[in-house]
Amino acid sequence: MHPSRTIAIIGTLDTKAEELGFLKCVVEARGHRAVMVDLSVRGDHGGADITRQEVAARGGGGVDELIAAGDRGAALDRMSSGAVALMRDLLDQGRIDGAVAIGGGSGSAVASAPLRALPFGFPKVLVSTKGAGDVSAFVGTRDIAVLFSVTDVMGLNPILRRVLRNAANAVCGMAEGAADDVRQADGPVVAITAFGVTTPAAERCRRLLLDVGCQVMVFHASGTGGRAMEELIAAGEIDAVLDLTTTELADELCAGALSAGPTRLEAAGRRGIPQVVVPGALDMVNFGPIGTVPPVLRDRRLHRHNAGTTLMRTTRDENIELGRIVAAKLAGATGPTELVLPLGGISEYGRTGGPFHDPEADRAFFEAVSAAYDGPIVRSSDHINDQPFADLVVARLLALMASIRPAAVAG
Amino acid sequence: MHPSRTIAIIGTLDTKAEELGFLKCVVEARGHRAVMVDLSVRGDHGGADITRQEVAARGGGGVDELIAAGDRGAALDRMSSGAVALMRDLLDQGRIDGAVAIGGGSGSAVASAPLRALPFGFPKVLVSTKGAGDVSAFVGTRDIAVLFSVTDVMGLNPILRRVLRNAANAVCGMAEGAADDVRQADGPVVAITAFGVTTPAAERCRRLLLDVGCQVMVFHASGTGGRAMEELIAAGEIDAVLDLTTTELADELCAGALSAGPTRLEAAGRRGIPQVVVPGALDMVNFGPIGTVPPVLRDRRLHRHNAGTTLMRTTRDENIELGRIVAAKLAGATGPTELVLPLGGISEYGRTGGPFHDPEADRAFFEAVSAAYDGPIVRSSDHINDQPFADLVVARLLALMASIRPAAVAG
Repeated sequence: MHPSRTIAIIGTLDTKAEELGFLKCVVEARGHRAVMVDLSVRGDHGGADITRQEVAARGGGGVDELIAAGDRGAALDRMSSGAVALMRDLLDQGRIDGAVAIGGGSGSAVASAPLRALPFGFPKVLVSTKGAGDVSAFVGTRDIAVLFSVTDVMGLNPILRRVLRNAANAVCGMAEGAADDVRQADGPVVAITAFGVTTPAAERCRRLLLDVGCQVMVFHASGTGGRAMEELIAAGEIDAVLDLTTTELADELCAGALSAGPTRLEAAGRRGIPQVVVPGALDMVNFGPIGTVPPVLRDRRLHRHNAGTTLMRTTRDENIELGRIVAAKLAGATGPTELVLPLGGISEYGRTGGPFHDPEADRAFFEAVSAAYDGPIVRSSDHINDQPFADLVVARLLALMASIRPAAVAG
Repeated sequence: MHPSRTIAIIGTLDTKAEELGFLKCVVEARGHRAVMVDLSVRGDHGGADITRQEVAARGGGGVDELIAAGDRGAALDRMSSGAVALMRDLLDQGRIDGAVAIGGGSGSAVASAPLRALPFGFPKVLVSTKGAGDVSAFVGTRDIAVLFSVTDVMGLNPILRRVLRNAANAVCGMAEGAADDVRQADGPVVAITAFGVTTPAAERCRRLLLDVGCQVMVFHASGTGGRAMEELIAAGEIDAVLDLTTTELADELCAGALSAGPTRLEAAGRRGIPQVVVPGALDMVNFGPIGTVPPVLRDRRLHRHNAGTTLMRTTRDENIELGRIVAAKLAGATGPTELVLPLGGISEYGRTGGPFHDPEADRAFFEAVSAAYDGPIVRSSDHINDQPFADLVVARLLALMASIRPAAVAG
């Protein structure tokens, strides 16, 4: 037998008491403990271990008043932030080993918020009526196992029983199998950012870093990927960053689809870990199908990457602005930081003959960032995907890492 | 200890051998057996229990030739259908108790196909680099637990180890906890279709059916919901249908966002189970934000339901066509079938004063379906959400159910 674990069960007891109670039965039948957290905005309900009043109070209170005044949105926000804070309390006190939530059409956002507050690797399951579509609002950057409820969550039925039984058994299985720490001490953890148009560089850098005993995490520069990396850096999970593909900054500047938010490229500097930064794919902004490109941008230099992706070339002026942005972000870095510029081109599409070939626009970035940044800059005449460039950036990163931990890496 | 289970582990050994092997380790460390299914389109790889050649052959073969000819898409299709067929074989032979797959950017579609072939309630987990966005292509209508990989799946790293360990422990936990049959013999299972604008009717019908001992599954008429219901009917999981909200047919006709496909409203008739059909919300077609409404439809009667949903009123001509479509579908039914028409209106928005109030267009549907359908039609002067209407349709459905299973329901 596995030792007994404690599983938080999260949802609204006013509308989902039967389903939440069923989860609890399965968890307890397996020999574990359940902590029922009630997210209901109104009514009093039996069966809660953490009542809606306690959740509301932790969120700042006043939920009943907000409901009475008809501001349901603000009431839900307070329940949501209360649940987030409570879940972190339980976690910090070592009182939970897993969490499972049920969310309906409008409830999935509120019920998933406390799951997103839990660390990477912590067992977390969301049963959602919206689990077969776009789950980005519920998952965020986290490893939440999302299980589509198939039927609406309106009373138990033979299918929903199976789904809920699976959800409860999944979170129990994860909690039973969790080691205290699976991070293995076999080398520093280096993050690399990659995109289709910088993959050759990323792949070679990864290989070189593995060869000298590093552990490598590759993040797809898709907005979510960059955000996840920044969060993991902030959480102390990453020892050094080879930020080869900073393209998400262009999406942030130009309202593209794959922005990683305004704080991208800041966590490593704040944390003080070594970073080598390259303007990979800053020559493009991502949009969805051509119809999703804002009309005001339709006359721009566009490239149909495939049916679902339209790319837009950044202009000379945008690149000047991006140069200033990169310089400003790196100026705040507290750890060893170097900027490495591939003067021969910053993406596969930017090569001679490629759809985004525009050396003048590229040069505008290089000049702007050079003028604005006071820190060390290394210039290479190579293209970003040329093999010597990968060798160069890895050598630079290993040098920075050695400068703070001389014995950690055999460069 | 739980009895030993067998878990299928699915993915491409050419690119993900290390990660798939890690899943296998966790499954085996838990005392279970792993069956490794290789979806690679090329190369020979150790470690497969079902090799890529076996998968390809089950898909019709010729994968190597397709790859040599440069048709990677067709090769992937054959691997995908081979994996689907093999998974069904393993299931039919009672040789697997759960399945876990890993999919990357392009591999998630192929790796998830064999999971979608498994029944509702069967333990199935997908680890995907695309698990934080739109998962509809991977989940389809199924209860697949989708776990975002956080980092790219390019070699193990401390975060990916935790995610994969959780995925393996989740599927093991589900397989350990699976009963042979959780369908409980406490009453016939009735499906109801609902939408926001028919919720009052659906809620009352549900209550009435529960009161007489039925088990009720409510399906949100969101495309996925209707498709899931049709699949569950075909699989024999549902005993009778109260198809209160056939709105998905309007989306199918008018290229709306929530079509359930061309075969909606056919499974119950094919299976021969009792059905009562109501044209709920056939007065509207769903679109996303206003910008997603096709330009050719911009001059139509539109209603902004919220920021993410724009509704379009169906016209008189469309309703005539919908009447023919409903009649044709019901004409093929092999079981007891009745059409019930709420002459007072078919959605909350269609009431007097509502944004879609248009009695003439409604009447066009009623007349067209009446002219084209030879089977029994019941007409009520009520609005669909009036309480007597719910009482009427439930009484009709119970009568149909009693006509084939006189003792099953105490109506």
